[in-house]
Amino acid sequence: MSGHLTIALDAMGGDLGPDAVIPAANLALMKKKNLRFKIYGDLKRIEPLLVQFPKLAKVSEIIHTDSAVSPDEKPSAALRSGKYSSMRLAINAVHDKQAHCVVSGGNTGALMAMAKLVLRCLPGIERPAIASLLPTVDKEIVMLDLGANLECTAEMLVQFAILGSVYARVVRGHDQPSVGLLNIGSEDAKGHDEIREAAAILQRLNFPGRYAGFVEGNDIPMGTVDVVVTDGFTGNVALKTAEGVSKLITTVLKRKLKASPMAMLGALLASGALKKLKAEMDPRRYNGGMFLGLDGVCVKSHGGMDAYGFSNAILHAAEIADKNFNVRVAAEIAEVMAQEQKIKTELAKEEIMPQEMVS
Amino acid sequence: MSGHLTIALDAMGGDLGPDAVIPAANLALMKKKNLRFKIYGDLKRIEPLLVQFPKLAKVSEIIHTDSAVSPDEKPSAALRSGKYSSMRLAINAVHDKQAHCVVSGGNTGALMAMAKLVLRCLPGIERPAIASLLPTVDKEIVMLDLGANLECTAEMLVQFAILGSVYARVVRGHDQPSVGLLNIGSEDAKGHDEIREAAAILQRLNFPGRYAGFVEGNDIPMGTVDVVVTDGFTGNVALKTAEGVSKLITTVLKRKLKASPMAMLGALLASGALKKLKAEMDPRRYNGGMFLGLDGVCVKSHGGMDAYGFSNAILHAAEIADKNFNVRVAAEIAEVMAQEQKIKTELAKEEIMPQEMVS
Repeated sequence: MSGHLTIALDAMGGDLGPDAVIPAANLALMKKKNLRFKIYGDLKRIEPLLVQFPKLAKVSEIIHTDSAVSPDEKPSAALRSGKYSSMRLAINAVHDKQAHCVVSGGNTGALMAMAKLVLRCLPGIERPAIASLLPTVDKEIVMLDLGANLECTAEMLVQFAILGSVYARVVRGHDQPSVGLLNIGSEDAKGHDEIREAAAILQRLNFPGRYAGFVEGNDIPMGTVDVVVTDGFTGNVALKTAEGVSKLITTVLKRKLKASPMAMLGALLASGALKKLKAEMDPRRYNGGMFLGLDGVCVKSHGGMDAYGFSNAILHAAEIADKNFNVRVAAEIAEVMAQEQKIKTELAKEEIMPQEMVS
Repeated sequence: MSGHLTIALDAMGGDLGPDAVIPAANLALMKKKNLRFKIYGDLKRIEPLLVQFPKLAKVSEIIHTDSAVSPDEKPSAALRSGKYSSMRLAINAVHDKQAHCVVSGGNTGALMAMAKLVLRCLPGIERPAIASLLPTVDKEIVMLDLGANLECTAEMLVQFAILGSVYARVVRGHDQPSVGLLNIGSEDAKGHDEIREAAAILQRLNFPGRYAGFVEGNDIPMGTVDVVVTDGFTGNVALKTAEGVSKLITTVLKRKLKASPMAMLGALLASGALKKLKAEMDPRRYNGGMFLGLDGVCVKSHGGMDAYGFSNAILHAAEIADKNFNVRVAAEIAEVMAQEQKIKTELAKEEIMPQEMVS
């Protein structure tokens, strides 16, 4: 596969299935010529679509399967009955070194469960996290976890900080990414025990980023830091709230711009600017929940995405695979684990001996 | 005080202190003629402002104190050293029936600690919650807790649901308010134990609202339900994320509308519509963190608010006091407590005997 990047595609995942996935692969190929595809799913649905894109067809292989994971199947059921599903076979391809990464728009819980089972976590990572790029005032930032882990220990939050900063550095090219822990105030005493312990470790840790302290919800869209770390419950709520507010403002803006002939004329003249705003905030542009911390690259596309949205999930996966993210993370995690035990011993000591007595 | 509503104002709280609080009181008085004010703080700063508003001066009394709680003081320290602070004296006025409610723009933690100590919780309420009104597509909704309680038991979430629905019904006039529990998916099996247990109780509870199930982050700004219930950590992050996204979109929109002469002309023609959008989303309009569940009405204004923003916090407090919210909540909570034990016994039984065997 040298020089090429092979993407395993679950063609049956997402609301539109192959109707979105195949044109998406074509869009991705137009942007990145060295992509190759292994497409898993129903041959009868995939083949007629593929013939419409001769360039894509040349670099693609269809692997037929009748089985697909349904959107509302429980992860445990999908693990049992989905052994020959398009999702599972696509993940297997990464494990078997037949592909560099896998992209699916299917059931998130099932995809995470299968990916964990087949690909396993990288050494030193307890649980993978879901990460995504988000638009902010001046740049894109990365945030994790967005829903894989409802509750997180301090150690997990520290691991997520490493995953996020290596991603920001290696994949996105930030030299010294700043990392913030999401909290409800910037003072040291705020927040859950886990968050405060994670903060204490990160303050002392030598890792490929700069720990910037606690950040609050408004810091996410303001782009105060390059990497926002949080538990999966809070991250998921924050992400969906952000999507909802974006939709709310767009809805109200449209309504106001239609309310008078003068406003309509204004909107017409400003339509280029409004389109640019829309494009910059377009959730399709940031589509792709990246499962970081696995020994293999797996990216989840939002189920409701069209071809353009899905193509961005493919490109994000290709970027992670291309930049050897996992090799780099594994090295950083080993380095961090060596320091972490020492830091924890120090922290424990400090609790016994208050700062005043030590200094 | 019959016919009148007396507001105790902490004039020293918030970034601007009396410079915002006194004009705010005047704005509130113009909208609601039956307001009366007890103003706590530094006479030398308050008096020269008050003489500028003769109508306000007529219905106001200044109670001088040199002491004020500083914005970054720890709640425990404020409790100890702030016994004669403007904040504490204003809260005392509510306890001593000298005022119907208290409004402060000061240190949130200190205000909550003092309010709990002085006013105490209503019988049956374990901990008060911070609630706020939020704009959505078609109406205002109420959300709680927004930061008072980092972690919440199922019982606390149920109490917040009652507080929120009584508020929506009695104060805002929704006949049968729908109540949603904030979660990361709408399926029954999703979320923390506490949330799922709260859901099981709310499904069986007869309360002055309609339990509408789990809602997700995007449901908040979409206005899917009238009342959104969550823990204080998640609620605070969601609220601040929403504020940040709103600011992000406004910033990008302004930038795009300045990027070309045509866009600028369009923006000029549509300026009336854009102003209406801004007014509708204006955070000052929704200013006022309402401490629900206390035996007394206490509202926290955002510290950075100007007079217009602070005046809305005053009007929200007046509305709650005016509609006898606390009397109504106390009755509903007593009613719910009577049912709750029975429901819990039922739930425990169901765990022993699975559904199939019972029916």
